Amino acid sequence: MIARRLLTRQLCRRQPPILCIASQACAAAIAARPTPFREVRQNSTFTPPFLQRLPDTVSTILEKSRKGELVEGAAVTVHGWVRSVRKQKKIAFAQIMDGSSDQMIQLVFLDPSIALDLKTGVSVRATGKLEVTPTRQDPYEISITDPIEILGDYASPTDLYPLQKKFMTQEYLRREHPALRFRTRVNANVMRLRSVAITALSAYFLQNGFFQTQPPLITSSDCEGAGEVFTVANSSSSSSAGEHFFGQKAYLTVSTQLHLESLMMGLTRVWTLTPAFRAEESMTSRHLSEFWMLEAEVAFTKDLESVMSIVEGMIRSAVTRMKSEGVLDQILSLKRMLEKQKATAKEGEDDEEMVTADEVSERWNTLVATEQPWKRITYEQAISVLQDAVAQGKVEFQHKVEYGESLKSEHEKWLARHYAQGPVFVTNYPANMKPFYMLPGPDGTVECFDLLVPDMGELVGGSLREHDYERLRGAIAASGMDPEPLEWYLELRKWGSVPHGGFGMGFERLICYLGGVYNIREAIAFPRWIDHCAC
Amino acid sequence: MIARRLLTRQLCRRQPPILCIASQACAAAIAARPTPFREVRQNSTFTPPFLQRLPDTVSTILEKSRKGELVEGAAVTVHGWVRSVRKQKKIAFAQIMDGSSDQMIQLVFLDPSIALDLKTGVSVRATGKLEVTPTRQDPYEISITDPIEILGDYASPTDLYPLQKKFMTQEYLRREHPALRFRTRVNANVMRLRSVAITALSAYFLQNGFFQTQPPLITSSDCEGAGEVFTVANSSSSSSAGEHFFGQKAYLTVSTQLHLESLMMGLTRVWTLTPAFRAEESMTSRHLSEFWMLEAEVAFTKDLESVMSIVEGMIRSAVTRMKSEGVLDQILSLKRMLEKQKATAKEGEDDEEMVTADEVSERWNTLVATEQPWKRITYEQAISVLQDAVAQGKVEFQHKVEYGESLKSEHEKWLARHYAQGPVFVTNYPANMKPFYMLPGPDGTVECFDLLVPDMGELVGGSLREHDYERLRGAIAASGMDPEPLEWYLELRKWGSVPHGGFGMGFERLICYLGGVYNIREAIAFPRWIDHCAC
Repeated sequence: MIARRLLTRQLCRRQPPILCIASQACAAAIAARPTPFREVRQNSTFTPPFLQRLPDTVSTILEKSRKGELVEGAAVTVHGWVRSVRKQKKIAFAQIMDGSSDQMIQLVFLDPSIALDLKTGVSVRATGKLEVTPTRQDPYEISITDPIEILGDYASPTDLYPLQKKFMTQEYLRREHPALRFRTRVNANVMRLRSVAITALSAYFLQNGFFQTQPPLITSSDCEGAGEVFTVANSSSSSSAGEHFFGQKAYLTVSTQLHLESLMMGLTRVWTLTPAFRAEESMTSRHLSEFWMLEAEVAFTKDLESVMSIVEGMIRSAVTRMKSEGVLDQILSLKRMLEKQKATAKEGEDDEEMVTADEVSERWNTLVATEQPWKRITYEQAISVLQDAVAQGKVEFQHKVEYGESLKSEHEKWLARHYAQGPVFVTNYPANMKPFYMLPGPDGTVECFDLLVPDMGELVGGSLREHDYERLRGAIAASGMDPEPLEWYLELRKWGSVPHGGFGMGFERLICYLGGVYNIREAIAFPRWIDHCAC
Repeated sequence: MIARRLLTRQLCRRQPPILCIASQACAAAIAARPTPFREVRQNSTFTPPFLQRLPDTVSTILEKSRKGELVEGAAVTVHGWVRSVRKQKKIAFAQIMDGSSDQMIQLVFLDPSIALDLKTGVSVRATGKLEVTPTRQDPYEISITDPIEILGDYASPTDLYPLQKKFMTQEYLRREHPALRFRTRVNANVMRLRSVAITALSAYFLQNGFFQTQPPLITSSDCEGAGEVFTVANSSSSSSAGEHFFGQKAYLTVSTQLHLESLMMGLTRVWTLTPAFRAEESMTSRHLSEFWMLEAEVAFTKDLESVMSIVEGMIRSAVTRMKSEGVLDQILSLKRMLEKQKATAKEGEDDEEMVTADEVSERWNTLVATEQPWKRITYEQAISVLQDAVAQGKVEFQHKVEYGESLKSEHEKWLARHYAQGPVFVTNYPANMKPFYMLPGPDGTVECFDLLVPDMGELVGGSLREHDYERLRGAIAASGMDPEPLEWYLELRKWGSVPHGGFGMGFERLICYLGGVYNIREAIAFPRWIDHCAC
């Protein structure tokens, strides 16, 4: 009880009233928030009881506490890294985090001497009594009276811990401490978002009878004949054969689509989430040399709408599921903390671009608004809409809008933001703007679509595929490609070909969009781009 | 009713009594068999009703029928490929398959003229009335009275369809028709097994608080310094810089472990399923140049047993789940069909090695026997056991058993089959046999394990990792490696290092084991190995 009162005094001193109100709302949200995908988590009857259990994480401690399995005063052991330490005369505090969730557990030391060796960044194992204070943003504390175990100190005790707020631009972290990035709240949160997004997307495909497949990454052709590709060679091969896979030309895939079509023409519905590679000499915040791509192909459809329905269903389903599991709340709570930091930062100390909490919130809400399907317009209509907007002085673009020219990023963003006020499918681009494998549509167009979203532009691209043998052979010839490396692919159309379509989505694009990540290099664990392959 | 009687006559003529008994049992099993992961499948409330629905697959037709949503006589449309056609004077039959499950639906034509253009391999869309005959192995039929739509014929109608039984060795398929492989029951079944295995494994990791991550495939170091690696280069780079990623040496990863450790030291528990690459000049049925590897790392453990518990829990959980969902039944039913084919094959026509249904059944049952944990023995004990067995004349090995020598495949298989009669963890190998990063254990050993299973030998390898900065630096030096490319990895031990461990499992090995796949090249969609990168 003394501990309780002491703590309460400390809490009040730490939190000005204005923050308390926000914290209360937040605490209520936290208390109501379920663990993502709890239906799967709870069903752990398959692991027999004689196997050793993993220790509790911060996440499981909080979950057990919310469910009443761990009550106030219960003995609890926590493992994690010290985020911050505050030592006072009669009390000390340490924030512990283990990356299992964005939440922290606070250790409270009524005997500050126990906390003497604690410093930011060390890892600890601590046992104490659970204390719950619902009014705080991180309402769970552990009261420590016995010495705690420091698992990992600094290797050089006199060195300065590198993850200090004042140094911590993302660019600095990537360059100087690539391995330590995931101990920061921002990067850990993105990694968790990737994981729950995969779970949610997988659930959609499972529900809809798609099989997850793994097309190859090393290929003998450079697929679309577009863009720069990487070559693969045995390191032991002689320098003259330096670009060869056991003596044969081989590339890293730029898209698994062609191989995925082969799997689809046996399994009917397939999807994949695999790395793809582009040797583009691009330095923008939107391009990576190695990224993950979600691709799907579906047989027995002659209808572009059915492919767009899969894309819309997939994103709606995944985002709705993640939202209902509290994932958006976690992102927003972190964003709001960052916004506060930014607001109080000194000149030049925190000048990295940031997507705000409100922007992220709007993105999620727009994607899952269920009243009506997302807008669909043709490329031709899109050109008219853009030209009208320019003519009416509603907008000025850097690039001229002209039929037959590709939509630039500024056009795409405007269409989504101002025309559709949300996601929009632009369909039926002129054939000469698109790769050889797309099915011809009316008036010199192909049966294709790009899904555009506000702020970002293209998120998904898809099409019906040419399924006729002779027409596909003709399209390859017309595009000036050598048909020989594509004979295996052409064979799919020789025997029982089926009308089909599919799409591809850059997984990091989705993560940027949902996570409010400004630079795509922060959406992947170890980004590779031109001149950058640090570790 | 006439159709019904006619069909019944046909059925009896087609099936000798001895088969009927087996078929009845089989039909009962089919009727009772749930769709894999139905709890996830059924929860599709996230897709709004205005989106276009995909047409029924063979799998959904059968499922709806079992659930009573499609009753006898209901109008049904099916899409698929014709597996076989039988035309008689007054009736014709065609087996339809779409790869959504191993089951087929039979089309019955009471007017054989409608089936005139049907031949094996063409794709069709057919509408008719559902007929259910529970006593048949494929109990679902559709009675067709209207013309059906041929979606894809042969491009050259006079050519011979290449997927004929008599040609169909796996080796022939891989070499001559790599894109068409997935239209065969055997290969489609393996692809489905991969997909459900991923779902089951993912569920285990989700239940246990692991985050799924994606470490990089292009790396700046060749990791363990062992084995042949592939190099990556821009195709546009000049020949003198042919082995370079934008001017820097870069490799395809042989294991994501080091990067995974970095993710783990932020998120506590992580796993990944990613491609890995080995440029080994190996032609065995056990090695691929590009394969998928499941790796996991877990923080805050000092105990090898906890890592082995994860491995055992993961495999038990995934296999139990798949078994309860009917996956084993599907494999066995296919195996039994193949065994019959093999038994009646002509000399030299079907001489590929095959794992029998009984062998597969035994593998699954041994893995999920829940009475006791799998055996654990040390390497030293394993050597004694093997030497005793040799001394007692129980076994003769090609390679001598000696302490300090690696266990050969024949030793591993014997240990699992005869000593453990099931899976066995062999722990604590001598340090000099293992890579630099493993944590030292007693008597010159390291805290590591290999999981061996009967017939296959090693399935998983894991260890505790050295987490002390100075000792890790020493181990790198002692192994003769250049520490410079590993400085980023060493930094993990500089700041708040934690005791941890992890493991890696070749995904295709697991698929071979569970699917009874003899050659690992059949366990992956597009196998790459020395000199083989066909498409």
